Amino acid sequence: MSLAPTAPELTPASLIDGSPFLKAVVQLIRANDAYGTYRNWADELLLKPYIVTKADKKDISLEEAIDPLTKSRILAFYRAIAYCIERETGSLAQVVVDLNHEGFGWALVFAGRLILVSKTLRDAQRFGFKSLEKMNEEGDKLVQKGIELAQQYPAVGDL
Amino acid sequence: MSLAPTAPELTPASLIDGSPFLKAVVQLIRANDAYGTYRNWADELLLKPYIVTKADKKDISLEEAIDPLTKSRILAFYRAIAYCIERETGSLAQVVVDLNHEGFGWALVFAGRLILVSKTLRDAQRFGFKSLEKMNEEGDKLVQKGIELAQQYPAVGDL
Repeated sequence: MSLAPTAPELTPASLIDGSPFLKAVVQLIRANDAYGTYRNWADELLLKPYIVTKADKKDISLEEAIDPLTKSRILAFYRAIAYCIERETGSLAQVVVDLNHEGFGWALVFAGRLILVSKTLRDAQRFGFKSLEKMNEEGDKLVQKGIELAQQYPAVGDL
Repeated sequence: MSLAPTAPELTPASLIDGSPFLKAVVQLIRANDAYGTYRNWADELLLKPYIVTKADKKDISLEEAIDPLTKSRILAFYRAIAYCIERETGSLAQVVVDLNHEGFGWALVFAGRLILVSKTLRDAQRFGFKSLEKMNEEGDKLVQKGIELAQQYPAVGDL
C-alpha cells in the first residue's frame, strides 16, 4: 500500500468497463470468435487494432483493396452502435457497410425506414482512431444522435 | 402497307419507349459505357441480361461469388429507381448495395435520413425478371412507393 496520493488515472481496462459502447464492440468481436482464438485475450488487446495513429496511417497503402480484417472491424464498430441504439429504443437496427475496392463507401445503421447513422467512408483501409478515448467518443456521439433521431421520428423507424 | 387489322402489340422497343423507368436503366448503362461498346446496340439488347427465366436461374450456380456484371446490373436497376424518384421529388437519392459473397444482402435507396427503397437480396447471382414487363412493373412499383414515402416524410428526407 502506497501512502503517496495518486491521481485517479483511467486505464484502458477501466475505460472499457465504463463504456457501454466499447463493451459492445468487445462483445461482438468475441461473438465472432468461432475458434476461441481470443478467449484469453484482454478486452484492451481486442480493441487495439482500432487504434491507428497518424504514423500508422501513413504505412497503410491506399492502393490495395481493403483488408477483410479491416472490413470486419468497421462492421463491428457500426454493429456495436446499432446494438446500443437498439437497447435504448427497442427497435431493431440493421447495419450496411458498402465499400468499393478503393475504400470509399457508406456505413448505414437503420431501423424501419429511418437512417440512424449515415457515414460516408473514405480511405477505409486506414479506419481507426487516435486513442481508445477518441473511439469511445465517436461511437457514443453516433449512438446518441441515433437515439435522438429514433425518438424524433418513431413512425418512420417502425415502418 | 397491310390491309389486315392487327392487334396493337407491345414490342419491347415500344414498351421501353413508354417506360420512364426502363429508359432510365438504359441511360445508366449507356452512361457507364466508357469505351462505346454498346453504342450501336438497341435498348432492348442492353436490357436483355435482366431477363432471367426460371430455367436460366437453375443454370446459375449459387456456389460462386456474385459476378461483377451481375452486381453492376443490380446497381443500375436501383440507381434508375433513385433517378426516377429524384426527378419526381427533387431530393437527392443515394444507392447502397451491400452483398456478401453468398449473394445475400441489402439494396437501399435513400434521401437524407429516409429510406425510400429497402430490399433484402437473396441469391443475387440470379438477379433478374421473367420478362421486360415484369421488370418494368417491379421498378415502377418501387419508384411509386419511394415517391409516396418522400412526400409523406419530407422532413426526414431533407435531414
